[in-house]
Parts: sequence; C-alpha cells; structure tokens
Amino acid sequence: MTAKLVGKMVIGQSGGPTAVINQSLVGAVLAARKQANITGILGARHGIAGIMKEDFIDLSTQSEAQLELVANTPAAALGSVRLKPGKAECEKVFEVFRKHDVRYFFYVGGNDSAETAHIIAEMAREANYDFCTVHIPKTIDNDLKVTDHCPGFASAARFVALAFMGDDRDNRALSGIKVNVVMGRHAGYLTAASALARQADGDGPHLIYLPERVFDVAQFKQDVRDVVAKYGRCVIAASEGIADKDGNPILTSGERDSHGNVQLSGTGALGDSLAALVKEAFTGEKVRVRADTFGYLQRSFPTIISPIDAQEAREVGKYAVNHAATAGTPGSVAIRRLSSTPYASECFITPLASVAREATHMKDEFINAAGNDVTQAWIDYAAPLVGELPRMGNL
Amino acid sequence: MTAKLVGKMVIGQSGGPTAVINQSLVGAVLAARKQANITGILGARHGIAGIMKEDFIDLSTQSEAQLELVANTPAAALGSVRLKPGKAECEKVFEVFRKHDVRYFFYVGGNDSAETAHIIAEMAREANYDFCTVHIPKTIDNDLKVTDHCPGFASAARFVALAFMGDDRDNRALSGIKVNVVMGRHAGYLTAASALARQADGDGPHLIYLPERVFDVAQFKQDVRDVVAKYGRCVIAASEGIADKDGNPILTSGERDSHGNVQLSGTGALGDSLAALVKEAFTGEKVRVRADTFGYLQRSFPTIISPIDAQEAREVGKYAVNHAATAGTPGSVAIRRLSSTPYASECFITPLASVAREATHMKDEFINAAGNDVTQAWIDYAAPLVGELPRMGNL
Repeated sequence: MTAKLVGKMVIGQSGGPTAVINQSLVGAVLAARKQANITGILGARHGIAGIMKEDFIDLSTQSEAQLELVANTPAAALGSVRLKPGKAECEKVFEVFRKHDVRYFFYVGGNDSAETAHIIAEMAREANYDFCTVHIPKTIDNDLKVTDHCPGFASAARFVALAFMGDDRDNRALSGIKVNVVMGRHAGYLTAASALARQADGDGPHLIYLPERVFDVAQFKQDVRDVVAKYGRCVIAASEGIADKDGNPILTSGERDSHGNVQLSGTGALGDSLAALVKEAFTGEKVRVRADTFGYLQRSFPTIISPIDAQEAREVGKYAVNHAATAGTPGSVAIRRLSSTPYASECFITPLASVAREATHMKDEFINAAGNDVTQAWIDYAAPLVGELPRMGNL
Repeated sequence: MTAKLVGKMVIGQSGGPTAVINQSLVGAVLAARKQANITGILGARHGIAGIMKEDFIDLSTQSEAQLELVANTPAAALGSVRLKPGKAECEKVFEVFRKHDVRYFFYVGGNDSAETAHIIAEMAREANYDFCTVHIPKTIDNDLKVTDHCPGFASAARFVALAFMGDDRDNRALSGIKVNVVMGRHAGYLTAASALARQADGDGPHLIYLPERVFDVAQFKQDVRDVVAKYGRCVIAASEGIADKDGNPILTSGERDSHGNVQLSGTGALGDSLAALVKEAFTGEKVRVRADTFGYLQRSFPTIISPIDAQEAREVGKYAVNHAATAGTPGSVAIRRLSSTPYASECFITPLASVAREATHMKDEFINAAGNDVTQAWIDYAAPLVGELPRMGNL
C-alpha cells in the first residue's frame, strides 16, 4: 500500500440544490474530521466559482449541533453554481489547489459536476500532483448513470407524490381538468413519482407524460377526453421536458444557462400552454381547466424529506471521504440496491468517466406502452425510496 | 326553553377546499351522533348543488377510524361547489329540506356560503318552518368578518412559510431574483404569512406585496433594485390579487366563476408577468429571474397541517352542531383569541348576517408604511396559529 495522501480537502456543491444535499456535505465534513491525513477542511462558496476566487469557509470548527442543523436545511449551504468550467478555469482551480496544498477535492453534484471533477483529476495526474478527487452524487432528476438512484431524488419525489395526493382530492372536490408540471429536464423520474399518489381506482394522476416519449398534441387531447369521459375529471402530470417528435420543447421562455440548457423551470409558460391545449380539446364545452407548475418547491421544501434519502445522502458524503482518505483513488460514489423489501443499499465507487457528461433516462420497463403512464415495475422501484405515505380517507 | 328541534341534519362543504375542512365535517358528524334530537345525518355531495339533486350520503354509519382518516385528508371529502344560488335555487333547497324533514343545516364555507345559509334561514323563518342553520367557517384567505381567524388559514399559511423558508435557501444558493405568487384574491393574509419564513437578517422574503395596497410598477422595480443592491439577490412574495391604482389586476386570464370572480389561480401568468417587469428593471444587466406560482398546493398539501388549525377546525364543526341542537338558533361559528402566549381560543356564535356577503382585509396595523412588507404586529398575530417552524442552519 502506498503512503496515504496528506493535505487539505476542498468540498463544494454544484447545480440545482436538493432537500438533502447538505446531508452529504455534513457527512463528508464529519468523516474528514476523523481522518488524520486530512489536515484541513475547506468549504468552497458557490463551488468552482468560489475555488477560483479562493472563497473558502473553514469547516473544521463548527459544532456538531450546528452541522446537524445545516444537514436538515434544504438547498446548498455553501452556495451552489451553474458553471461548466473550460480548460482555463480548471487550470485556475488546480493552481489554487496547489497553492493551498489541497490534496482532496469532493464535488457534490450531478453529471456536469462529475465531469468537472474528472477534468481536474486528469490535470493532477498529468502534472504528477498527488491528488484525489471524488464526486458525491446528488440530483432530484435521478439521472446519473451507474447508481441505482441519486440522493436528492427521493425527497423531491416525496414532495411530488404528496402534492398529487392532495391535488387529486382538490380536483375531485371541485372537478375539472388539472395540469401539473413537474421538474425534470430530460429524465421523467420525478414526474413519474406522481404515480405514487394513487391509492385506489380512479385516483389521479390519470395521465403521466415523460420526456422519454414524444409528446403528441392530438394524442394528448384524445387521452384527456378519454379520462374525462370515464371519471368526469382528469389530473395530468407533465414533465417540464416534454418535447415533440422533432425534440422541440412544447414551450420554453428561451433562456439558457452556461451548460447550454434551456430554462424550463421558474416559469408557468408550459403549464399555461398545456391548459390552452386542453381547452382546445373541449371547444364549445364548459370545462374548468387549471395548471400549476410545482417549480422550485420540489427541491427545497423543508420537512418533506424521505428518511432513506436523508440517510443515504449522509452516507455518500461519508463514504466519499473515507474512500479517498484510505484508498486514495478518484471516482464517483454510487448506490447499489441490495433489497427492496425490506429496503437495503450499499455504496461503492465507480470511475468518474462512467458518470461524467452523459445523463441517463427512465428505463423502458418503467413506462407503459401508450407512453402516458408508468408501470408496476416503476412503483416497485420508487416506493421504497420515497417512504411511507399517509393514507387518504374516503366517504 | 322551547322544545328542542327534532329532525335530520344536512351538512355540506362549499368553496375552495382547505387542508382541514374535513376536520370540521368530522367534528360536526361525531357531535351529531351524540345528539338524540338529530335523527339523521345527511352529507350533501358538492354542497348546494347536491342538495338540489337530493344527492346525499348517510353519515351516521361510518366507523370512527374511517372518519378520522377523512379528517386527516385534505380537500372536501363530500365534494365542494362554487355556486352562488339565486332565490329559485334556495327555494329548491328549502323544498328538499322539507321533503326529508331536515331541521338542521350546516354549511362549511366562506362568506358566500354564510350568505347562502342566511338566505335559507330567512326562508324557513318566513315559512314558519322550525329550522336551524349554522355556518361553519373555513377559508385559507382568512377573510371572514368577526372571527379572529378562519380555520384552514393556518395550515395554508404554514405551507407558505415553509415554502419561502426553503425557497429562500434555494435562492441564496444560486442567487438571482425570485417571485413567488401566493393565493388570496382580496386579502393578503396568506401572502403575508411568507414573512414567518424569516429567521435572521437578510432572510427572504425581502418584499411582500398585498392586495390591500396599490401595486405600483415603478415602485416595484425600484424596490427590487434596492434589495438587490443590498443583498445581491431578492425573494418576493406577491399576492395573486395585487392590482393597480384603478383596481385592475396586474394580469389575469379573464375567466370568471359564478360568483363573478376572475380566475387568478391555476395559471402562471401573473408570476411570469412580474418576472418580465423585474427583467425590465435590470435591462442590459445579466440577472437570473424566476417566478413560481404556488397554486393549489397551498390549500391541499397532505402532512403540512398546523396542529392548532386542525384542532380548531374540528372544534368549530362540533360547536356548530352542539349549539344548534341545544340553543336552536341560527348563526355562524367564530373564534375568539383568548391569549397568544400561550395560545388559547374559544368558539362563539355570531349572527349569519354579520359574516355573510362581505369579506374583510388585512388590518392596516399589519402592513408597513411603504406597503411592501408586514409589521411585527402581524408576526405576533400569525406565528402562534402557524405553529413551530423548523430552524434553518447556516455555515
């Protein structure tokens, strides 16, 4: 065994926050405090952007009570960033790491963050700088490769399931057609979680549209008419990322971030557009059509936390640090599901390149043949992660 | 004391559902089962609409366990209705009541429902039909007269406070300007509840716009620029009912219900419109602007319940039945606050006419001089109702 890497660590958070991303931060920090070869714990403000500016917080001194408060607080406590660094920016980061004798870098984020970590790891290798970088997974989109699922997803999924559970009751009370737009740019996982709201025949959502299937306007109108004919009402879950056969979003405001991604969240435009399509489908008839866009509440709502998600988010942070401090090899932490009933999982390390860049999508086995609902296999996969949901009462 | 009224009761739910409206239903039903002079308990499907169709459910047979499940389920379990009945419709209702020997009518709803109850009570009086009608208050808008506050408000307020608490962290992590549109057509109470999210200096919401004050676009732009200059970011709470100096909504989709009310919920149009105004205020500068419209989640989210709200909603239902069965006089149940610390309240009966028709607004003492925030008096009023909120952690 080679000599252990001795030096400081930097940890940063990147991308869209989640309700449990601070669990990963705190898991990593508490683990690092126990590793003698980690000589300093620097938190980077706003991820890579903070590193370039040497904007660090010393994370070795906070009380455990304070860190536990942070762990239970949604959104990135260090601040986050949406920045895909180019080569020059990665070099700057690497220069700062050398200057501060940083030997460990932990980046909590999605596939773009894994790519950033990968580039910096490669730079260190080429420069023969002893260095270990480990990516800590998080994303409400659940779209990372290799891992069974991503920390952050299950809490957002729990929010979505509860939201549909209540909204379906609301729709039942006053009737009509309700469109709810759910986050998830390219992957339909979060939208699919709406299906967990169903407890009895006739419960909504009655239709689920995912970005993995072409959104056909004519079919959509027919689907809604069919559901209304059957139940006298209709609750629809639509991913913000649904697109037509040419891959064009049904509607977007056109703004793009530095990763080249179109702005799909933070606007009610898609919901209003789908509501307009529904009204077209019922031209000449009196129908009550409403649309809600769940927006940022899905990823940052306090108290709506999946217990398993909180626990696993803590564990991936801890695992990353312990792996780095003992094995010293780069990688990304992934989760392997050992059992669904009772639920059990374990962490393992996968190469950074296996997670970086490309994201994944809902598996075909999770989507029904008509492309407007999910399958039982999906429920079996998602239900243990989201945790027990309250029972709704009927008269 | 006159002889007690002997006969059946009808109970209905009306208007926008709340998270605890079923507590009132169950409180009334369980109380009625103990009153010997109430000889039958009929639940009207979709309020007045169901009564006219004689669409009733027998509520005397369900197990208490089942009723407790219903009590903890958001949205109106009997179904609700948005129907302001005319004289002919009220006569039809009265005819159905006579036919079924109904001597008690309980209507759970807002000021419009109180008015309906009032008209029917007057009809019975004119016809010398021994009859007692009691209005049971509910509304997330908190806009009923006489009562200190309305059942349903505190749970929706809790949702709004938690939503802003998390969203403020989200905004802090990625920065920018965030507009959140909150329900409340004419009364700003629910929007004002966003202020309960603040725990430390700099916490959002930084600006709160209520329908009780004229919304001035130029002032709004200046307000946002001032906050951004100070904090580098800005979280805004805006009521769906904000209007310009001529009383025109800033933007609506134009749809109206049978009460003549414009559709303000179930569309992201106002949020997107406010986001566009913010972008105008920063023309030529790079700013990240997002808008969310909380929508129906505010009134129907399972598990986000204020304990005091659940308890009081149960109590007003119970109180209505016990009052009717013993005193036999019509009225509306109201809540009197006895103490804020520790919180204590009691129910009393106020005349139907004192609650019917006109709603109320936020008191002036609750709104700051600039008209873009609330006062400490508001916090003192609202905090005990909403209940303890989680502490957010900082680094």
